[in-house]
Amino acid sequence: MSPKRNPRLAGFAALDGLGRYGVQDMFEGCPRAAAAGVPTSVAAVYGGRAPWPAPSGRGVARYGARLPYETFPTLGEGATPLLPLPAQCGLAALWLKREFANPTGSHKDRMSPLAVARALDVGARGVLASSSGNAALSAAAYAAAAGLPCSVIVTPDLTDAYRRAIVRTGARFVVCGDSLARWDIAARMVRDEGWFPLTNHMLPPVGSNPFGVQGYKTIAYEIAEDLGAAPDAVLVPTARGDLIWGIGAGFLELAEEGVIARPPRLIAVEPIPRLSRILAGKAAVTDSFPGTTRQFSTAGGTATDASLRAVRDSGGTALHVTDEAAQRGQIALAQLGVDAELCAGGAYAAIGALHEAGALREGETAVVILTAGSAREPTDAALPPLAVT
Amino acid sequence: MSPKRNPRLAGFAALDGLGRYGVQDMFEGCPRAAAAGVPTSVAAVYGGRAPWPAPSGRGVARYGARLPYETFPTLGEGATPLLPLPAQCGLAALWLKREFANPTGSHKDRMSPLAVARALDVGARGVLASSSGNAALSAAAYAAAAGLPCSVIVTPDLTDAYRRAIVRTGARFVVCGDSLARWDIAARMVRDEGWFPLTNHMLPPVGSNPFGVQGYKTIAYEIAEDLGAAPDAVLVPTARGDLIWGIGAGFLELAEEGVIARPPRLIAVEPIPRLSRILAGKAAVTDSFPGTTRQFSTAGGTATDASLRAVRDSGGTALHVTDEAAQRGQIALAQLGVDAELCAGGAYAAIGALHEAGALREGETAVVILTAGSAREPTDAALPPLAVT
Repeated sequence: MSPKRNPRLAGFAALDGLGRYGVQDMFEGCPRAAAAGVPTSVAAVYGGRAPWPAPSGRGVARYGARLPYETFPTLGEGATPLLPLPAQCGLAALWLKREFANPTGSHKDRMSPLAVARALDVGARGVLASSSGNAALSAAAYAAAAGLPCSVIVTPDLTDAYRRAIVRTGARFVVCGDSLARWDIAARMVRDEGWFPLTNHMLPPVGSNPFGVQGYKTIAYEIAEDLGAAPDAVLVPTARGDLIWGIGAGFLELAEEGVIARPPRLIAVEPIPRLSRILAGKAAVTDSFPGTTRQFSTAGGTATDASLRAVRDSGGTALHVTDEAAQRGQIALAQLGVDAELCAGGAYAAIGALHEAGALREGETAVVILTAGSAREPTDAALPPLAVT
Repeated sequence: MSPKRNPRLAGFAALDGLGRYGVQDMFEGCPRAAAAGVPTSVAAVYGGRAPWPAPSGRGVARYGARLPYETFPTLGEGATPLLPLPAQCGLAALWLKREFANPTGSHKDRMSPLAVARALDVGARGVLASSSGNAALSAAAYAAAAGLPCSVIVTPDLTDAYRRAIVRTGARFVVCGDSLARWDIAARMVRDEGWFPLTNHMLPPVGSNPFGVQGYKTIAYEIAEDLGAAPDAVLVPTARGDLIWGIGAGFLELAEEGVIARPPRLIAVEPIPRLSRILAGKAAVTDSFPGTTRQFSTAGGTATDASLRAVRDSGGTALHVTDEAAQRGQIALAQLGVDAELCAGGAYAAIGALHEAGALREGETAVVILTAGSAREPTDAALPPLAVT
């Protein structure tokens, strides 16, 4: 397919507001900010807004007039359910946004089609994702849908469940000993071999592809449409924060246009204290944050300026949840009938602590983003055989 | 929650048209038919039809006025995407109905809420599913959502991925050495212990819970709404055929009401020749059909009168696909970006053979039901470790 670029797309602006660029690929973020030692990404700027509400239809495709591409390779992404839960901690209402209803089972399916559309538009030789999980599977599927080659840079701990699904798409694997070393390889493949990157390859990181990240705005659009308003808070499992930034950008648009009274507070839930230390003034956003976690989708020792801005500018906060707390959240959700990957269980588990800390108050409303389900996530050793009863 | 029974529900009729019953539980099918040696299930009968189209909203819940319960425990099931594919074999159009967008990842989530609603209504001690796959996970999740105990009768080959998810719901496991022996245990638990069964426990089988199976009608409703018409054919991965029967019942309703011109031909795609042998006059529906297959969701050596009627009465047919063909179908879908469990790959792979056999003709339209994704399905041995590139 031949994607149609949105004629409203005017260019990109650095997140610090100090750089403005035409429509172009800026995989490495804003060069001015990088030179100043505070790397940050760029955000799409549009000349004029599309009318609200979006036209009828289904999913991310409805919102093309607010995205960098009006048409893009689609697998039926978006239109994920918003499930009401019994309220707790005095909240007036609580919902789960079940992003694993998406085609490859995660929110990444809102990013991939827009980035792949850009790759098609510029005639890239193929797309590249550095990921051993949801981003890799999503990139591989959308590249396949677009008829583009895909390379995924994975680590040896890629689970068989992801691996089998990615292999079937025809994607090419590059296996790399450790997670950070992937980014050097990715940078080389982008600069020297012409691969179009969907994910970050900078250290300190700036975030995923700016065309792709725009797709996360559609989560805000869907929530605002389903609720007829913005919630008071949105809880987001967060690593480098493409998702929380994109959700925030969507709500900001709607607030500027008067569709919602004000944007929600964005709450980053993280398995390693990163943003929570930065917000407490104990670390800089460019620092490294050592630590291991079983919450594999939000693992990693880095943060980004984008995620910090999303949280701070919305009046939100960041909260560290241990793996044990995340597991309790995952089980609590399962006992309500809801499957979730461990880090999404962590976001659910955060409600109590946020309430105690005064970051979620009685009478407020909140949405928890369930980024993915548990089906493909890494686990400890195989279970013992089932003994016949 | 307290489910609201549909006041239009008038009772049940045997599928052979020879028995009529009030609103009651008929886990073992029509007693008259069983006594006559041709066991069959019963179908809900309604006194009057709800208006079409259904009220606005989302998912299966929209169609409560056409289901045994107007309200039921919900996890946001239904409203699954209908994805257009490039046509092939001269078809005018081809769509995939992606049922793994459902809460626990399969079409079973359309059955479970209605059966669980019935269990709540009659005050059952808990619900029971004999399944080592999608039906068990779905039953466990909806029982959890309803606050009811759940027992699942599984075989030792239950995959860790299903097992971990089911364990988290709090369901109780009964492990049974082989697949058919499960049904005796289930029958005892239903008769002696008061468990409410979601799945079949008869041999020859009659099919799953009649309240639950009504939920599959909603797939027909959604397709008819999305397309504004019925397709010419619907291809369904089939074991005992609750799903194909339910889809047929939904389309029949709409045809009777003049919403669609005529119901589609239903095509059962099966991993072991069962219905295809019965339709060819080479076996009886009560026979056993030995054979093994890796298409685990549609495995099993039995057929049902319901599935035979669905296929025959719609002018459809049945087709056997080998595991090798199913795997080619699974890979072909993946290379279009679409994940699918093996038997759903089989349904997609059937298109060519159906075209050659004249069962799908040029200029026709077809929908393939993708029952589930690949994430939790059993696989052969673990993959070899990934070697660093």
